[in-house]
Amino acid sequence: MAHASQASSHPFDEAMALVPLAPRADEHGSEPPREFEGRTHPAYANMVGPFGGVTAAQALQAVLRHPQRLGDPISLTVNFAAGLADGPFRIEATPVRTNRSTQHWTVTLWQTGTDGLDTVMLTATAVTAVRRATWGAVDEAMPSALPPSSVPSVPFTDSVRWVSSYDMRLVAGTLPKQWDGAEADSLTQLWLRDNPPRSLDYASLTALADAFFPRIWRRRARMTPIGTVSMTVYYHAGPEELAATGEGFLFGQARSQSFFNGFFDQSAQLWSETGHLLATTHQIVYYKE
Amino acid sequence: MAHASQASSHPFDEAMALVPLAPRADEHGSEPPREFEGRTHPAYANMVGPFGGVTAAQALQAVLRHPQRLGDPISLTVNFAAGLADGPFRIEATPVRTNRSTQHWTVTLWQTGTDGLDTVMLTATAVTAVRRATWGAVDEAMPSALPPSSVPSVPFTDSVRWVSSYDMRLVAGTLPKQWDGAEADSLTQLWLRDNPPRSLDYASLTALADAFFPRIWRRRARMTPIGTVSMTVYYHAGPEELAATGEGFLFGQARSQSFFNGFFDQSAQLWSETGHLLATTHQIVYYKE
Repeated sequence: MAHASQASSHPFDEAMALVPLAPRADEHGSEPPREFEGRTHPAYANMVGPFGGVTAAQALQAVLRHPQRLGDPISLTVNFAAGLADGPFRIEATPVRTNRSTQHWTVTLWQTGTDGLDTVMLTATAVTAVRRATWGAVDEAMPSALPPSSVPSVPFTDSVRWVSSYDMRLVAGTLPKQWDGAEADSLTQLWLRDNPPRSLDYASLTALADAFFPRIWRRRARMTPIGTVSMTVYYHAGPEELAATGEGFLFGQARSQSFFNGFFDQSAQLWSETGHLLATTHQIVYYKE
Repeated sequence: MAHASQASSHPFDEAMALVPLAPRADEHGSEPPREFEGRTHPAYANMVGPFGGVTAAQALQAVLRHPQRLGDPISLTVNFAAGLADGPFRIEATPVRTNRSTQHWTVTLWQTGTDGLDTVMLTATAVTAVRRATWGAVDEAMPSALPPSSVPSVPFTDSVRWVSSYDMRLVAGTLPKQWDGAEADSLTQLWLRDNPPRSLDYASLTALADAFFPRIWRRRARMTPIGTVSMTVYYHAGPEELAATGEGFLFGQARSQSFFNGFFDQSAQLWSETGHLLATTHQIVYYKE
């Protein structure tokens, strides 16, 4: 393919390149924590600090890189305790319980403040599992839409860097043309993938799950300050389904159910172009007014 | 009211009665963990061990009982690392980060095994916050239904004790009449509240969020072994909205989006009888075949 990506030089791979730190003296036993150093990446810069989707992906990556990891991701919940600063961080993944086919994880991410003290910026939990083939069904069918080749690629903003690290092709539910406070529904549907294209994996799927612009901007047509406080991803695909998706587009859909006294929710789905529901994802987001 | 409950003797209050343990010698600093002893409660017994909804509520309760808790619950994610045994447990809540108006929590629950060793049975994370009055909207409207007084109270099974600790009035989406493998949709709608009635609070709302019978039983009409591995609750109500609900019924709706190689999801909503969306909740559930 003309756009064949060089995996080793893709910005997303650079962002996922965690460096293992030497185990600490007190880390022994059969299920030790494993610590890594990572960095925010300029290709995924947000207005302030990094795009949270890539931070969530880095949290998952710490689990995926742990030498005792069992199976593939089933669920991930990331709590954004504070806005990361651009720069390095330490992240630790601990398998707190390993069962026969499932494994439970906790993750903590620290940054060193200007006072020289390490503070918690993020906590996460994850479940991985060895899947077995079973009966299955996709009950949330992919909405019908023009194919991605027929939809123009238009980033929803050019004011933050991370948005241009994705190819987004909006099918329905744009940002308001005028920020006039006119209420609308909260639904957005779009085709999306990494830009430049990159073969889908669990980490990039996690980041894509956070790539929808804030629902309240569409719902209310006001430039409301927001920040995701907690985000959960459920993975409904094995490595084969991810490989089959490859560098292709995903179809994404997001909407909200409640806006209440400073916090709104978002529920979203990500399908492969052939209609396999790869992930469902939810988040709760702070909003200012 | 004729059915006015005596709060001090309600089984749910008994289940939530965590006993604070003395702080350990190494627990100092401004944001110490706080440890409690709790017990499973016979009124919430499941087929094996306790009903997971009450266990999730106990995890939230450890946060609510922490003397440094800031504000009210915004989100809770509980990972069920192993099936609890009936009996006592230790639970610890730690405020890992306290911001101006939000606070981030980790929770761990241990039980002592037959080998005398403590093992992790559950991990959780939570976010609490001081809410401020803002613009708001309920975008997921409560489905129309006959009022609870017009719907018969029928527990979906009488084979496990916890089900009779709830008053469930099924509006749509019963269990299959015959376990013949006939496929159906996964949707269930019902009125539900504590039995005996009890004024709603964040802990009981959390338990109610897990009170739907497994979606795969309806979807497939097969008695499939299941177990929730991770559950998230987003709270869209302040103390006033909970107080206004009081001992009234909630309207609950649950459905699944994907069943894939051993794990299915459930998305659900809980409204007050007047149509306020009190909570949205999601879980990912292991299934055997």
